[in-house]
Amino acid sequence: MALTSNPHLSSGAPAHAPVDVVIMAAGKGTRMRSKIPKVLQRLAGRPLLQHVVETAADLQARHVVVITGHSAMEVEAACADFTGAGAGFALNFVRQVPQLGTGHAVQQAAPVLPDDGVVVVLSGDVPLTQSDTLFHLIQACGGNKLALLTLEQSNPAGYGRIVRDAGGAVQAIVEHKDASEAQRAITEIYSGIMAVPAAQLKTWLARLDNKNAQGEYYLTDVVKFAVADGVAVVGHKISDPVQVAGVNSPVQLAELERAYQLQQAHRLMDEGVRLADPARIDVRGDLLCAHDVSIDVNCVFSGQVSLGEGVSIGANCVIANCVIEAGAVIHPFTHIDGESLGVTVGAGALIGPFARLRPGAKLGAEVHIGNFVEVKNSTLAAGAKANHLAYLGDATVGERVNYGAGSITANYDGANKHRTVIEADVHVGSNCVLVAPVTIGAGGTIGGGSTITKSTEAGALSVARGKQVSIANWSRPAKKPKA
Amino acid sequence: MALTSNPHLSSGAPAHAPVDVVIMAAGKGTRMRSKIPKVLQRLAGRPLLQHVVETAADLQARHVVVITGHSAMEVEAACADFTGAGAGFALNFVRQVPQLGTGHAVQQAAPVLPDDGVVVVLSGDVPLTQSDTLFHLIQACGGNKLALLTLEQSNPAGYGRIVRDAGGAVQAIVEHKDASEAQRAITEIYSGIMAVPAAQLKTWLARLDNKNAQGEYYLTDVVKFAVADGVAVVGHKISDPVQVAGVNSPVQLAELERAYQLQQAHRLMDEGVRLADPARIDVRGDLLCAHDVSIDVNCVFSGQVSLGEGVSIGANCVIANCVIEAGAVIHPFTHIDGESLGVTVGAGALIGPFARLRPGAKLGAEVHIGNFVEVKNSTLAAGAKANHLAYLGDATVGERVNYGAGSITANYDGANKHRTVIEADVHVGSNCVLVAPVTIGAGGTIGGGSTITKSTEAGALSVARGKQVSIANWSRPAKKPKA
Amino acid sequence: MALTSNPHLSSGAPAHAPVDVVIMAAGKGTRMRSKIPKVLQRLAGRPLLQHVVETAADLQARHVVVITGHSAMEVEAACADFTGAGAGFALNFVRQVPQLGTGHAVQQAAPVLPDDGVVVVLSGDVPLTQSDTLFHLIQACGGNKLALLTLEQSNPAGYGRIVRDAGGAVQAIVEHKDASEAQRAITEIYSGIMAVPAAQLKTWLARLDNKNAQGEYYLTDVVKFAVADGVAVVGHKISDPVQVAGVNSPVQLAELERAYQLQQAHRLMDEGVRLADPARIDVRGDLLCAHDVSIDVNCVFSGQVSLGEGVSIGANCVIANCVIEAGAVIHPFTHIDGESLGVTVGAGALIGPFARLRPGAKLGAEVHIGNFVEVKNSTLAAGAKANHLAYLGDATVGERVNYGAGSITANYDGANKHRTVIEADVHVGSNCVLVAPVTIGAGGTIGGGSTITKSTEAGALSVARGKQVSIANWSRPAKKPKA
Repeated sequence: MALTSNPHLSSGAPAHAPVDVVIMAAGKGTRMRSKIPKVLQRLAGRPLLQHVVETAADLQARHVVVITGHSAMEVEAACADFTGAGAGFALNFVRQVPQLGTGHAVQQAAPVLPDDGVVVVLSGDVPLTQSDTLFHLIQACGGNKLALLTLEQSNPAGYGRIVRDAGGAVQAIVEHKDASEAQRAITEIYSGIMAVPAAQLKTWLARLDNKNAQGEYYLTDVVKFAVADGVAVVGHKISDPVQVAGVNSPVQLAELERAYQLQQAHRLMDEGVRLADPARIDVRGDLLCAHDVSIDVNCVFSGQVSLGEGVSIGANCVIANCVIEAGAVIHPFTHIDGESLGVTVGAGALIGPFARLRPGAKLGAEVHIGNFVEVKNSTLAAGAKANHLAYLGDATVGERVNYGAGSITANYDGANKHRTVIEADVHVGSNCVLVAPVTIGAGGTIGGGSTITKSTEAGALSVARGKQVSIANWSRPAKKPKA
Repeated sequence: MALTSNPHLSSGAPAHAPVDVVIMAAGKGTRMRSKIPKVLQRLAGRPLLQHVVETAADLQARHVVVITGHSAMEVEAACADFTGAGAGFALNFVRQVPQLGTGHAVQQAAPVLPDDGVVVVLSGDVPLTQSDTLFHLIQACGGNKLALLTLEQSNPAGYGRIVRDAGGAVQAIVEHKDASEAQRAITEIYSGIMAVPAAQLKTWLARLDNKNAQGEYYLTDVVKFAVADGVAVVGHKISDPVQVAGVNSPVQLAELERAYQLQQAHRLMDEGVRLADPARIDVRGDLLCAHDVSIDVNCVFSGQVSLGEGVSIGANCVIANCVIEAGAVIHPFTHIDGESLGVTVGAGALIGPFARLRPGAKLGAEVHIGNFVEVKNSTLAAGAKANHLAYLGDATVGERVNYGAGSITANYDGANKHRTVIEADVHVGSNCVLVAPVTIGAGGTIGGGSTITKSTEAGALSVARGKQVSIANWSRPAKKPKA
Repeated sequence: MALTSNPHLSSGAPAHAPVDVVIMAAGKGTRMRSKIPKVLQRLAGRPLLQHVVETAADLQARHVVVITGHSAMEVEAACADFTGAGAGFALNFVRQVPQLGTGHAVQQAAPVLPDDGVVVVLSGDVPLTQSDTLFHLIQACGGNKLALLTLEQSNPAGYGRIVRDAGGAVQAIVEHKDASEAQRAITEIYSGIMAVPAAQLKTWLARLDNKNAQGEYYLTDVVKFAVADGVAVVGHKISDPVQVAGVNSPVQLAELERAYQLQQAHRLMDEGVRLADPARIDVRGDLLCAHDVSIDVNCVFSGQVSLGEGVSIGANCVIANCVIEAGAVIHPFTHIDGESLGVTVGAGALIGPFARLRPGAKLGAEVHIGNFVEVKNSTLAAGAKANHLAYLGDATVGERVNYGAGSITANYDGANKHRTVIEADVHVGSNCVLVAPVTIGAGGTIGGGSTITKSTEAGALSVARGKQVSIANWSRPAKKPKA
C-alpha cells in the first residue's frame, strides 16, 4: 500500500469535516521481549506504525498526531524513513510522559487538534485496519456523533462489551469483569478505534479522571460523557477480527503476518495471478502483476516489484525492487534485489536457476543468465548470455555477447571500481578475467583461460595464457601415512 | 497418472457396453482473467483437460469427444501434446459455435456417438474425478439407466438438488431458485457428470428446448425426459467434493492444486515414504519411490521421477525427469531436470547442496557432485568427483576422476559444441579450462590454472600457466577521492 | 532437548521413591513399510526412542530398561549413539522373544527392576510425552498407588475407556468392544503410560494370563489386580493428545513432526524470536536464540545452533551445528553445517545469499562471504571478504583480506590436503589458484588469473599469467551444418 489517495474520499464521497488522526504509539510492548519498540516491529517488511500512518494517508488526514513514549526518539526517527514529501499531511509527535492511560495519551494530543475536525483514534500496534472501514466509521460519526468501531466476536470473553438500547444506540462499553450475566452474552466488543468530533472530544478529555483500580485515565470514559451530554453514540460493526487485532507478542505478530499474506495471495489470485500455493507466498511491499503471471511455491517479494504479462516465477525465488518484463522466465532459486538502484529483466529473458541479480542489473530482451551467475551494476543488451558460474560487475555488455563459464570482470583493484565494456557479438571464453578498465572490441573473441588487461580490437582473437607443457609418467603425490 | 488401463476394467469386471466419453471444453473461463483457455490452465503441471482425458483413458473409452468452442484451435492443438500413440483411443473434436448451453454442447457430439455405447459426460474443467468413481457410475447406468453422479454436500445452497422418491429413485434435479423449502433441505446435489445409454441420450437431446430464463439448452433436462419415458434414473452418490469440483477462478484452481498435492502426499506416505511436511511437497507428474525414501520440506517433483531404496532428498530441492538410484543422497538446494534426455544419479551418489544436473547427466555409483557445480550432457563413471564450483558439459569422465574446483569444460567455440574426454583416474586441478575437443589420458594430472587445448598422454602431468613473478614493495592503487 | 536434569526434580520437589523407566521398543511397525525399526524412525532428526530416553533422563531415572525385540541388535546399537557419559543413568536392554503382549514385555524387565522403585512404563514409539506430565504422574502414584496417564478425547471410539467410581477412583479400563453404551460415552481414555510401585507391579505381572481373544498377556490387566488387592488406582488426566500419540505409520509420524515443530515455533516466539511463518520452520535439535533474532520463512535448523542478539536469518536457509554471533546477517539460500567441527560466524558478519559454510569455518567479526562461495576448515580474521564464486579450504586468512571472485585454494594434491596462509591486508585478484602449501605475505597483491605455487613476500605484487596476444580479424568457427 503506497501513500496514495483513497478513491472513496477523493471523488463522489459526501463532504465531511476534516479528518485528524491520533495514533497511540507510546507503549512499551514488554511481551515482544525485544529492544525494538513495539510499533517498529515489522509486519510484511514494514513497521507496524508505518501501516497505520499509511492508513491515515488513505484517509487524507489533515493532521496525523503520533503519541510517543517508550523509545520516543527511536520511534520518531523511524517515522522520518517512511513519510516523505508525498504523504500529503503533517506528522506531529506528542510525547506522553509518564504514561497514565489511553485517555491521558489523547489529552496530550488535544492541543494540536483543531476544533473543526473529526478525530480518528488509532493504535500504532493495530496495523491492518482497512481505510474503507475507517471511512465508514467517519461517515457514522457524521461530524456530530461519537462513532465506535466494534467487532462481532463469537468468543467475547475478556473484552469490553458494547451495550446498546432497544433502538440500537450505544449506551456504554462495559468491561468484562464489570459485566452482568446478560451483558456477558453480548458478542459485540469495542475495538479501541473511534471517530469523534474534536470539539466534543476535548470537553470530555477535560473531564476524565483516574479513580479506578488501575489509576489510569481511560479514553473509553468518553462514552459515558457522550451519553450524559445527549450526544449520540453509534457503533460501526465489522466481523473481520484481523482489522482490529493488535500486536502484543511475537505470536500475535506472526498470526497477523500470515493473515496479511493470505489477503495478499487472494488479492493476487482475484487479479488473475496463478499461485501454486496461496499459503506459501510472502509479499512485503507492492507486487504488480500483468495478465497470466504464475508464481510457484515459496517465493518472497519485497519492495516494488512489477511482473509483466506471462512472467513465470519458479519455486523458491526471493525477489525485490525490480521490473520483470513480459514473457521472462525466472527459474527456481533466483535471488533478485535491486535495492534503491533497481533491476530490470527484459522481455523473454531466462534467469536462473541459482542466479543473482544485484542493484543496477539492467538486462535487455532475451538475455540469459544461468546458474551461479551474479550480475551487479551492469547493462546487458538484447540476446547477451552468461550461462554458467560467472560474475559481471560494473560492465556494459553488447548485444549477443556470449560470456563464458567461470569468467569474471575484475572491477575492483582493491581501492576503486572500474568499468568493463564488452561490445556486441563478442565471445568471451571460459575462466577469463577481464581486468577493468578494459574494452573488448565488437565481434572479438577472448580465448579461454585468458587474463585480459589491455583493451582489444574489434574482430580480434585475444589470448593470454601459458604454453601447454607435459611431463610424461608423472607420479602424483602419495597419501601420507597418518602420524 | 499415466495413460494406462484401469485394473477394474481390464480384468474381472462385468461385461458392459462400450464407453464413449464426451468432455465439455468450450467455455471461456472469464473469471480466470487469463488469455489461456480455461481447460488449458495447469493443475499439478498438466492442463485441466489432460487430467480429464487421462481419466477417460483409464475408463478404456472407445471414443473421446472433446467439445471445443472458445479458443478451439488452441485447445485442440494442446491435446495433441498430451495424447500420444499409447492413448488407445481416438480423440475427436467437435466445435460448439455459438454456445447455447450444456445440452446444445452434447447435441454437437451426438453424430459421432455410436448408438450401442454408454456415454459418460465429463467437464474439461473438473480435473480430479477418480476413474473408480466413474466406473461405479457406469455400473449404475448398467447400459439402460440414466446414472447421475451426485455429491453429499453439507451446505448445498445454490446447487441443483437431487429429488428422490420414497424408493430412492431420482425424480428430478431441481435448481436452487426453483426449490421448495423441503427441497432446499436436501443435501444431495448434482455434480454435472452423468452416464447414459447413447441411443436414449440422442432421443432426449432431440427434445431439448431453450424456453427458460437463460434461453439455453440444458443437458439436465434429460432427467425429466427419462422419468417421462419410464427410464430409471439412478444417483451414484459420493462425499468427496474434490472429485467434482470445477475450476472457475485462480482461487479454485489453487484450492484444487492443494487438495491434489495433499492426496499425493498421503499416497506417498501410505507407500512408506517419509515426508517431513505433507503440506510442503509438490508432485507434478509421477513420483515412484522404493522403500525408505525420505523427502525433506519444500521439494517439488515434476515429470517422471524414480527414487531408489533409501534415497534421501534434502530440503528445497527441485527435481524433474530423472532416476536416482538406491542410497543416493541429494542435499538441499539441488536442482535436477532431465527434460526429454533424462538424468541418472547412480547408487550411493552424493549430490549438492547447490548442485544442478541438466539433461543428459549420467552419474555412476558413488559419484560426488558438490556445491555450485553444473553437469550437462555428460557421463561420469563410478567414483568420479566434482565437488566445487565447476562445469561439466558434453564430457565423458572416467572412474575416480577428481575434477578440481572452478574447472570448466569449454565445450562451445561460439558455433559448435565439442566433447571433452577425461579418462579414468585423472586429477584435474583447480580453475582449469579444458578446451574441447580434447582428451585427458588416463591417470594424468592437469596442473591448477591450466588451459588445456591439446590432448594429453596417459600418466602425464600437463601444465599451461604463466611463470610466477613478483614486484616487491608494490603499492596498490589508492582510493580516489570522490569528485 | 538435551540430556539435562529437570528442575522440578532437582530442587524443591517432594522426596519420592527412585524412578525406574521401562521403555517398550520391541514392536515391528509393519505399517511404516520400512526396513528401519519403528523406534528408530526419526522425528525432528532424532530416533523416536531417543526422544523417550531423553524424557527418562529428564526424570532422573535410576534405571532405564529398553525392551527390544524386532531388530533388537540394530535398536540396541543405535542407543549407543544417543546415550553418552552425560546421561547419568544405566541403559539396560532386555529382549522380548517371542512377543506375547505388553504384559509379557514388562515381565521380561521385572528381574532388573529393584523392589524399592516406582516403575514408569513408556513406549518407544510415543516420543512427545513431556517430562512434567510424567513427574505429575509419579506424584499421583506417590509410591503406593497405580497411576494411569489418561487423555480426555472428544472422539474416544476405539480406545480403552477409564471407568471411575462416584468418588473418582479408577475402577477399570474397559476396551471399546467390551464397553456398555454408558461406558462408550466416557471420553477419558488410557494412554498406555503408567507409574506403579515396582514391588506390587511384580506380584501383578506374575498373575497375568493370556486367556483372551488375542492370546496375549496384557499389561492393562494390572488394573483389575490392583482393584482386587485394594490398591488405589488413580488417573492423571491430560488433554493434549500429542503427548500420548504413538507412531504407527508415516502419516502419524508426519503429524507428530508437525505438532512438534509447531511447539518449537511457539517456544521460540514466546522467547521473543520473530518468525515470519510458524508453520514453516523446522528445528531438529537445539536452537538457542538471544534477543531480537528474526527468522524468515522456510528455514531448517539441525544439531546445536546458537544465534546471537539481533541475528537475522533469511528465507530458505539450512543451518546446522554453528554459532552465529550478534548482529550477523544470514542472507537467503545459505547452507551452514559445522557437523562435529562446528562453524563460527562472527559478530556483524554478512553471509550469503547462496553461501556454504562447512565444518571448521571460523569467521571473525564483520567477515563477508558472498554468493557461490564455499568455506571449509578455514579461519577468516575480522573484516576479511570473499564475496563471489570462490573456494576457501584449509586456509588461514588474515584481517581485511580481499579474496577475489573465482579464486580457489588448491588444497588437495590428489592425495593429501595442504594449508594456504593469506596474511593480513592481502588482495587476491580474480580467478586465482593458490596451490597449497603456500603463504601470501601480508599486504601483498596477487594479480588476477594467477596460479601461485610459491610463497610470496609481504607487500609484493605477484603475478603468474601468460602474455596477452592478439590475432586481428579472426574468424570464429562457423556453425556446422547438421549431418
